[in-house]
Amino acid sequence: MSREIPAVNSTAEAAALSRQQQLTKPPGSLGRLEDLACWFAARMGDPVPAMPRCEIFVFAADHGVAVRGVSAFPQSVTAQMVGNFARGGAAINVLASLEDCRIEVVDVGVASAEPPPAGVRNERVRAGTRDLAAGPAMTPEELTAALGVGERCAREAVSRGAQLLIAGEMGIANSTAAACLICAFTGATPDAVVGRGTGVDDAGLARKREVVQMALARAGAGVAEPAPETPQKSQTRQSAARMLAELGGLEIAAIAGFYIESARLGVPMLVDGYISTAAALAAVALEPGVLSWMLASHRSAEGGHAIALEALGLEPLLDLGLRLGEGTGAALTLPIVRAALTLHRKMATFGEAGVSGAVSESM
Amino acid sequence: MSREIPAVNSTAEAAALSRQQQLTKPPGSLGRLEDLACWFAARMGDPVPAMPRCEIFVFAADHGVAVRGVSAFPQSVTAQMVGNFARGGAAINVLASLEDCRIEVVDVGVASAEPPPAGVRNERVRAGTRDLAAGPAMTPEELTAALGVGERCAREAVSRGAQLLIAGEMGIANSTAAACLICAFTGATPDAVVGRGTGVDDAGLARKREVVQMALARAGAGVAEPAPETPQKSQTRQSAARMLAELGGLEIAAIAGFYIESARLGVPMLVDGYISTAAALAAVALEPGVLSWMLASHRSAEGGHAIALEALGLEPLLDLGLRLGEGTGAALTLPIVRAALTLHRKMATFGEAGVSGAVSESM
Repeated sequence: MSREIPAVNSTAEAAALSRQQQLTKPPGSLGRLEDLACWFAARMGDPVPAMPRCEIFVFAADHGVAVRGVSAFPQSVTAQMVGNFARGGAAINVLASLEDCRIEVVDVGVASAEPPPAGVRNERVRAGTRDLAAGPAMTPEELTAALGVGERCAREAVSRGAQLLIAGEMGIANSTAAACLICAFTGATPDAVVGRGTGVDDAGLARKREVVQMALARAGAGVAEPAPETPQKSQTRQSAARMLAELGGLEIAAIAGFYIESARLGVPMLVDGYISTAAALAAVALEPGVLSWMLASHRSAEGGHAIALEALGLEPLLDLGLRLGEGTGAALTLPIVRAALTLHRKMATFGEAGVSGAVSESM
Repeated sequence: MSREIPAVNSTAEAAALSRQQQLTKPPGSLGRLEDLACWFAARMGDPVPAMPRCEIFVFAADHGVAVRGVSAFPQSVTAQMVGNFARGGAAINVLASLEDCRIEVVDVGVASAEPPPAGVRNERVRAGTRDLAAGPAMTPEELTAALGVGERCAREAVSRGAQLLIAGEMGIANSTAAACLICAFTGATPDAVVGRGTGVDDAGLARKREVVQMALARAGAGVAEPAPETPQKSQTRQSAARMLAELGGLEIAAIAGFYIESARLGVPMLVDGYISTAAALAAVALEPGVLSWMLASHRSAEGGHAIALEALGLEPLLDLGLRLGEGTGAALTLPIVRAALTLHRKMATFGEAGVSGAVSESM
């Protein structure tokens, strides 16, 4: 994990900002679309970037903690939904197809005796994590393997020409693991961070809070808060890795590895919802430089998501009450990115259009 | 103006809602995308509606009040920007082209001695309104003519097959007229409602507030607050029409007529930003039934926009700090509508996918 994460291209960014001032609109009137154009200019190294080629990976895995009744759905739904992804019936398939994105479904650890169905990549590290309330979810070796799955996926995508990456996930009970990580990496309390996930009832929500509390205490969480500027980098990284193994999930670790490798390759990523943002916190704790390659897509209806985004200093583009995961919020943001980049490229400048700029002095 | 506005189709809406419960996702997890699918089902009269064919109209006109220095741009920019629309160089042209929408630019009253350029529809009622701070912006006859322009445009679009309509606008100083209307129709104060528009400086902002205050006092505003359920409907309508003539703009009146006729024809509309929402308030005051055919697209950076949306009870889909007008916020929402309707149509159901639903009882 020692390869450097590149800096963004500030020359391209400055040129993009200057172009925005010349387009036929009051300066700043396209709001976040202007910021987006400059953000991609800086990361694609082009003052007038074309819409990046985007690939979507859905990482699926099971969670031992599901036995504690923390989800509204039975564990078997993970494997069933992997089948649904493989047949193209899930929400993320529909959005990937609308956006013409390559999508790959990766089994990092579904709890099934059967191999994954055709069309699903088999990278099963283990048939689901152990119960994180009782002991570490993963061994250090399993964590390394799961991180490696994500890294490999990112590397292959970039070698195919991907210029923007989206990770999604599926895993019954993974909002419990994500809640543990968000608490561990932000210092927020389970009461603030734990939500209903896919829709657990009141009793389930109470159980879920208890389980998270128990897991945090067991793992000695609270020591792994990200401290990007600390001189003891390797120590911070070690404790971040320990938290991820203790409290994470195989798909969450794969996403963290995916984000880290994407940033190393200088390719930006569009972060999805609650689970992906927990992975983003872990990735940034492991490799602080990843953060400047991350764009937040949406704010989930799961309350703790806002806490995780704030801890990263990311302001999402959409807020539509989504809480599905799979990468759906990130995919939904692609047309906004396309609009921002197309406006940046195709609008006339004041000079070209013969339109007067703002009057310089008050009348 | 006596033709009835049709009710929405609640049978199609109920069928859409029922379909949403069967799609392979936790119920409610697609948030506002689920509401959107049901909203369009109710208005298109189809439980599984296809993406509606959308047309965009940009109504342009000048404002006599521009002489008071309420805008950051000189009045000549209205005509210059109409030229830019005609040549396809403005933001709304780029977005219309991305979404493959027919776009028509309508000169309802640009202050120019020249006729509009080729490709722009000439419906000039008058070469700009009178100064609304000094007297009525329009005569009742001019108001009727401007409303009629919008009505005709909506009728023609629907006869061409449009199933969703967007109005945009261009008119230097039109945020001053819109602020007057928002104050008049909501009862809010100029301090809350008047913003910087295209970017007026502090002195300009102070002048703008004074001008709005003066105009409201002159016109006796505050009597025209919408009261949809009042028994004296015709009186309410009369006073709404008077406010629109006193304080409005020709393009704003055209948009109000456009919205009203669209609703009469049972075609939904996607409301844009500050100026369009002022027109929406006027349209609803004139014909309360219009409201159920309106969808709010975005919340503008212009502070008073939130007040206008709240008064209508509309919750916008996007909040990206836009303040450009032209219909850009509404056009930017089209891919979100498309995503919602495509998910609704193409996702597999639990039955089709062999995926288990939520466990019915707490474990």
